[in-house]
Amino acid sequence: MEAPVREKARIFRFGNKTADGSKNMKNLLGGKGANLAEMSRIGIPVPPGFTITTEVCTEYHTNGKEAVIKVLKKDMENGISFIEDIMEKKYGDPENPLLVSVRSGARKSMPGMMDTVLNLGLNDEVVAGLIKKSNNERFVWDSYRRFIQMYGSVVLGMKPDAKEDTDSFEEIMDKLKEKRNIKLDTEFSVQDLKELVRDFKKVVKQRTGHSIPSDPWEQLWNATMAVFDSWNGNRARYYRKIHGYPSDWGTAVNVQAMVFGNMGDNSATGVCFTRDAGSGENVFNGEYLMNAQGEDVVAGIRTPQQITKLGSKRWAELAKVDEKERVEKYPSLEELLPSLYAELDEYQKKIETHYRDMQDMEFTIQEGRLWILQTRDGKRTGTAMIKIAVDLLKEGLIDQKEAIMRIEPMKLDELLHPVFDPDALKKAHIIAQGLPASPGAATGQIVFFADEADKFKNSILVRVETSPEDLEGMNIARGILTARGGMTSHAAVVARGMGKCCVSGAGALNIDYKQRNMVVGEKEYHEGDWISLNGSTGNIIEGKVATVEPELSGELAEILELSDVFSTMEVRTNADTPKDAIAARNFGALGIGLARTEHMFFGQDRIRAMREMILADTRNGRRRALQELLPMQREDFEGIFEAMQGLPVTIRLLDPPLHEFVPHELAQQKELAKEMHISVKAVKNKVDELKEFNPMLGHRGCRLGNTYPEITEMQARAIIESALNVKERGIDVKPEIMVPLVGTLKEFILQEKIIRQIADKVFTERNDRVDYLLGTMIEIPRAALTADEIAIHAEFFSFGTNDLTQMVFGYSRDDVGKFLPVYYEKGILMTDPFEVLDQEGVGQLIRTGIEKGRSTNPKLKIGICGEHGGEPSSIEFCYQAGMDYVSCSPFRVPIARVASAQAAIKHKKETV
Amino acid sequence: MEAPVREKARIFRFGNKTADGSKNMKNLLGGKGANLAEMSRIGIPVPPGFTITTEVCTEYHTNGKEAVIKVLKKDMENGISFIEDIMEKKYGDPENPLLVSVRSGARKSMPGMMDTVLNLGLNDEVVAGLIKKSNNERFVWDSYRRFIQMYGSVVLGMKPDAKEDTDSFEEIMDKLKEKRNIKLDTEFSVQDLKELVRDFKKVVKQRTGHSIPSDPWEQLWNATMAVFDSWNGNRARYYRKIHGYPSDWGTAVNVQAMVFGNMGDNSATGVCFTRDAGSGENVFNGEYLMNAQGEDVVAGIRTPQQITKLGSKRWAELAKVDEKERVEKYPSLEELLPSLYAELDEYQKKIETHYRDMQDMEFTIQEGRLWILQTRDGKRTGTAMIKIAVDLLKEGLIDQKEAIMRIEPMKLDELLHPVFDPDALKKAHIIAQGLPASPGAATGQIVFFADEADKFKNSILVRVETSPEDLEGMNIARGILTARGGMTSHAAVVARGMGKCCVSGAGALNIDYKQRNMVVGEKEYHEGDWISLNGSTGNIIEGKVATVEPELSGELAEILELSDVFSTMEVRTNADTPKDAIAARNFGALGIGLARTEHMFFGQDRIRAMREMILADTRNGRRRALQELLPMQREDFEGIFEAMQGLPVTIRLLDPPLHEFVPHELAQQKELAKEMHISVKAVKNKVDELKEFNPMLGHRGCRLGNTYPEITEMQARAIIESALNVKERGIDVKPEIMVPLVGTLKEFILQEKIIRQIADKVFTERNDRVDYLLGTMIEIPRAALTADEIAIHAEFFSFGTNDLTQMVFGYSRDDVGKFLPVYYEKGILMTDPFEVLDQEGVGQLIRTGIEKGRSTNPKLKIGICGEHGGEPSSIEFCYQAGMDYVSCSPFRVPIARVASAQAAIKHKKETV
Repeated sequence: MEAPVREKARIFRFGNKTADGSKNMKNLLGGKGANLAEMSRIGIPVPPGFTITTEVCTEYHTNGKEAVIKVLKKDMENGISFIEDIMEKKYGDPENPLLVSVRSGARKSMPGMMDTVLNLGLNDEVVAGLIKKSNNERFVWDSYRRFIQMYGSVVLGMKPDAKEDTDSFEEIMDKLKEKRNIKLDTEFSVQDLKELVRDFKKVVKQRTGHSIPSDPWEQLWNATMAVFDSWNGNRARYYRKIHGYPSDWGTAVNVQAMVFGNMGDNSATGVCFTRDAGSGENVFNGEYLMNAQGEDVVAGIRTPQQITKLGSKRWAELAKVDEKERVEKYPSLEELLPSLYAELDEYQKKIETHYRDMQDMEFTIQEGRLWILQTRDGKRTGTAMIKIAVDLLKEGLIDQKEAIMRIEPMKLDELLHPVFDPDALKKAHIIAQGLPASPGAATGQIVFFADEADKFKNSILVRVETSPEDLEGMNIARGILTARGGMTSHAAVVARGMGKCCVSGAGALNIDYKQRNMVVGEKEYHEGDWISLNGSTGNIIEGKVATVEPELSGELAEILELSDVFSTMEVRTNADTPKDAIAARNFGALGIGLARTEHMFFGQDRIRAMREMILADTRNGRRRALQELLPMQREDFEGIFEAMQGLPVTIRLLDPPLHEFVPHELAQQKELAKEMHISVKAVKNKVDELKEFNPMLGHRGCRLGNTYPEITEMQARAIIESALNVKERGIDVKPEIMVPLVGTLKEFILQEKIIRQIADKVFTERNDRVDYLLGTMIEIPRAALTADEIAIHAEFFSFGTNDLTQMVFGYSRDDVGKFLPVYYEKGILMTDPFEVLDQEGVGQLIRTGIEKGRSTNPKLKIGICGEHGGEPSSIEFCYQAGMDYVSCSPFRVPIARVASAQAAIKHKKETV
Repeated sequence: MEAPVREKARIFRFGNKTADGSKNMKNLLGGKGANLAEMSRIGIPVPPGFTITTEVCTEYHTNGKEAVIKVLKKDMENGISFIEDIMEKKYGDPENPLLVSVRSGARKSMPGMMDTVLNLGLNDEVVAGLIKKSNNERFVWDSYRRFIQMYGSVVLGMKPDAKEDTDSFEEIMDKLKEKRNIKLDTEFSVQDLKELVRDFKKVVKQRTGHSIPSDPWEQLWNATMAVFDSWNGNRARYYRKIHGYPSDWGTAVNVQAMVFGNMGDNSATGVCFTRDAGSGENVFNGEYLMNAQGEDVVAGIRTPQQITKLGSKRWAELAKVDEKERVEKYPSLEELLPSLYAELDEYQKKIETHYRDMQDMEFTIQEGRLWILQTRDGKRTGTAMIKIAVDLLKEGLIDQKEAIMRIEPMKLDELLHPVFDPDALKKAHIIAQGLPASPGAATGQIVFFADEADKFKNSILVRVETSPEDLEGMNIARGILTARGGMTSHAAVVARGMGKCCVSGAGALNIDYKQRNMVVGEKEYHEGDWISLNGSTGNIIEGKVATVEPELSGELAEILELSDVFSTMEVRTNADTPKDAIAARNFGALGIGLARTEHMFFGQDRIRAMREMILADTRNGRRRALQELLPMQREDFEGIFEAMQGLPVTIRLLDPPLHEFVPHELAQQKELAKEMHISVKAVKNKVDELKEFNPMLGHRGCRLGNTYPEITEMQARAIIESALNVKERGIDVKPEIMVPLVGTLKEFILQEKIIRQIADKVFTERNDRVDYLLGTMIEIPRAALTADEIAIHAEFFSFGTNDLTQMVFGYSRDDVGKFLPVYYEKGILMTDPFEVLDQEGVGQLIRTGIEKGRSTNPKLKIGICGEHGGEPSSIEFCYQAGMDYVSCSPFRVPIARVASAQAAIKHKKETV
């Protein structure tokens, strides 16, 4: 049934299973008002009330209070009498008083930004009457105390957060608690509460010059106007500015009957879920407390009881409570009040079916009458999210597209990494906070040197920062903790690639390698001490915390398969080893978008040859050293090609500056000198010579390939030879050779020439050939700006958005930690641009690059291989920008598959 | 007289003071052919000849040799007989032989890229006849030897530069010289030359299988075709590719009578200038040698004599030759052959008037007959360039615009800086080469530490690199030499600002601070040793070299004033001190486009307060330290405002990362700790904490102003207070406050808010106000990409193209020296993008920034303050992109004024 549309209605009533409004009227009624109307409309017993529209808010701000009262008076009286009829009480009647609440509600939720006043309708006379009627003196005085406090704060401006003001109410209560030697509000006696009411009234008068009006209608009007005023309060204005909400939206005001769960043994309050929020299982569940208010559940003094019998039995088992004790002390609502339970069960089914998602509901039973206070989509774990989506699909409540859209892709992370045992976590002592650089949980003993990572069975590698030399140790350690570096620092990027837990940039750590300790605040931690890392939150925890390994569910596989049906963008992976490649394929990667060849140069035998090359002063000397690296590199590529079984593999030529490969500590330099039969001074000189002020902007990428073409020659040969070798074994190969850090057309052309010549030479030598693509990273702004030229020669583009972001923002991702926290705090940045692609700036350049690239080469294949390739909002951007694929670390592949499908569903007119 | 236009003419004749072509026919006749025609057409006696058109070259490459000979035969015969008639000789006639040359000539000069054959028409028989006729056996055999050598190389392909080949001819000559124990070609006897001819013929036959044809016509055809072929030779193709010349231009071929200045005492050869190329003085001058060929002048065995009597007398005075000896041994041409001199003088006047510029001419007198071989615009010094342009303007030969366009702006540099005495320079021993970072010449004693720059009266500061701490020492030293860093390294930028000579990035230097020496190759230089630097060439010279101070001429002032008439873009300066500001105003700067405030923090008393601020852990601690800096900073600004007398002054807020202000050496850290009463460890920790991986992309610019707003507050207060103070003294002030390194709108808004609040506060305190502008640097790519947003708030943009170039290319300007030399060599880059603005990439982003900025703020004032603001081609770009002003270092202001005028003249339809 549609609500009747009325001309310029100022209030919309709800209650008694009918409503003037519906959920589609959020602009007029605000989110809360529309939702209350909707529930009532579908037959849910919500406490009756009415919504004053957002238009009235605008009228108020334009025409003023008097004008609004004039036009609204009749409506308001109608509204109240509507509530009175349903509640069978009268507003302001001491014999049978109705209490109401006044709440804000804008079209978008603005949590905590505007005001609320509860328990309107109370005054000394009504209090007396209500005590008589309810026979619950404590409840009434406590309600009165709360009303005065809220009215004083909201309507009379005694805001606790006003700078010049201390919170007078809290002060008074604190003093009384001290006097009584109690801690909790609930410990106040009736006498105490009376005293508080008296003191509150006094302080209000004293501080504001006003008394709390005893006229309920004056209370109502003033509270309503105060809520309208709060729309233009500082907090709300700031919140709107940040979120870009226009100020002419206005807020609605909801006037609603108060209901109380603490009015005796036929009253209760509770929270319930239509399905299990942890597992997703389709069982109704929840908790309640007899004769209690909502906040009593939160306070945790009484143990809440389970709503269903099944839930109660399960709880008893865990809590080791025997059946007899359970039934006696902790009966379920189902058992205790079967008919009210049946009613609740009916409503939860109705609500879930109506909202077509798992709901989180609040209810109150007042003197044997059930009221549903609120329903909303329930928060859930990643596991539950998947299971519920699949179940709802199977139950026919949602269709395939909706099932996919129900997934929050980032939540899949939980399903793929170990997590801390939630119980163990409760006792955890968090000693510091870093960046959540790579998800998962890890617990282990501290080591400070990568080559000692195997010193303990479970080690946590703690470094100021990591470098490529540390790779092997990082692989052995359970988790990685660094004091410096952002979300895309070396440690973070490598750890994510490995699917290993990492917390980076924990500035509070003072690491002393010599002493082998770290100081955090006052406390010292030594090598061998146990710590735990939460890579999903950035928490650093003292001691051991038990972890739980994740289990992959069949439902996840179903969602991923379904995603692939809708997805039009390929998902590849960034993988440098056959192991990573296989992991990524298991997660559904359709190719490798980035295989970094430099990671292959750090093995014990390889680094020696690499250093020999770097130390050589002549081209021939370098060629000799490269000759040693050739077979190893070839072997690496063969492994990857075999693992990928005919899927495309993009191999990036050597990228990092050479100083990353030479030892920076004297002992190692000495060793190297001995090994190479040269003087230590020669080694030191070379290391010094390689030092750079800004290595990020230095001699690396194709700048190396162009100054030392022999490196490119070796790598091209290794790629082509390995491809032919694998082909000989009957396995299809699709190599894609990627030139890094191109900024000018000629840089690419010169590299292209070398690679094509070597390839042709190898084809001739082997009398066999293999198709390959030759393309480039677009990671230098200039490359994007001149993409039309570069695309004439390049067969594919892969946007390297890590470096592109660094250069477009002028941020070094290793140093950004110094000011990023302040930038978040001040609202300069909302998200880390290295994590969430900056669509406005970096994205603009990407769009330019794609447009220009395709303008000269319509067949150009375009993808992304920066960290953003695994971040949902960035993936959506990639889709809209017209990319062919995204590439991300193996553990992000499932996320990217879902995000890619969501982008297609969201933006494509016609889907499969 | 216009040359008659003929249908599809294949040859164009010139000689006897007539011509078929003219200088406007360069596309058809090539540059050389058109110019020879032009000279002949205006009555200059050039050796007669004809030009085979570029179209024939294309025909040749399309249809082949035979086809071309067929259509060209009659023309060729006509052409030769035209020459024969004028020269009164016959081609191939042993009795009275005509010799000709065959030369290439494309529409644009491609020096050395194509081929030439001289002395065609010689064979054994002709040689005998010519000897009889000339009575000069040596001359004839030498000519024959040369002919065979050139024909063998060019026509028969015995190229000396062909890889498989050694130069057989040179080999033979070298052997004979060894045998005869002589060194120069001129020392060969007639007998030797005969022997060479014999051996040359033999080696040609032996190596190519062909003999030198004795038929002069066969020689002519083959030589012509060989020149056509050279159009598609490797060298020419490469040259065309680099310069973007299309291959269908083709080359013309010039066949011209040979004339000889070495045919006896009525023969001579010489070079002359219509004005003095050194001073610009309007006096005809030049040198000649009797009975000689052009190359004899070059060989330097005989002292050339002056052409004019005036010149001869001046020469004698300098050479300390008395008048008698002069007249006897070194008479001028004017004195020796007065009528030929008169003829030459008539021609030089005619030619200069015709070409309307100072000309550099070559002439030969053969047996009493004067031939002008070539004329071209003469190379000249900066001084001469200015004087000649102004004189030509006054003489009415050129108009104002032309006078301005005649200036090569970069050559003005010479006029503003000391230069080496050219004579002293001849003996200079160059020990290494760096980058010409800041022009001028300097000679002094080596110091390795900035704070010891005053150790010698004239010191040269030699550093691996410089840092802001070195500023004072740099100012004291005569010149600065660094081993690292590019054209826009700290040393280079600061030195140019100071107008001080600097050579940077001299990689060959091995500096050892401990030993206080530097090793270059095998040689060691110690503190106190004399060296000299040429900042205009990058040469590093051993020992003292005398320098000459420049004198500013009135003509320069005239050109600059004239430039301002045409210029529409303002020229400002980058200046941080009143001294620089005054220097720049004297050069004509109309404001300061960039005053860097950080340079003001390095004085002895200031750095202490600055360090105190950095070491403070609390906002209040920082405020206290800043409070100490405030009066000093205010004083700085007052000095600058006063110096600029009402011209606009753009002040940039603190830009560099804080670690530039703290000491990095232990001794200084200890001192600081003592001074601040804190532990050395605390100082070290702070210094470590400030360390960055990529400081260029780190915590600097408005990132500082936003994390430490108190810095911006202090600077804003200093600017506004100083402006009010200066205003009170009756001096107009126009402050423009510039926020550096903005990348997001909010960064600017937050800084804007602070600055406006402080300004309003100061206005209230002082009960006075001053107008000021508030704008930003556009130096982060993202700022250019989001310029439309930023321009809503900013009142001006100043493109910081140094940083913008770093980020658009991804080059650290301090590290780029590692690969830039290779990049030039390989043609990846043609120019240093930090010197010459990259219009394609960086320029594209600038255009985007300007367009977007003006789209939301049409009144936006836009300028540039990077190093490019003083580089002519970049200034032209700035004009075209629509900037309002350019700002450059004081010594570049005159250059920028001229370049700005040239841009306006070149690109504006309507000028004043």
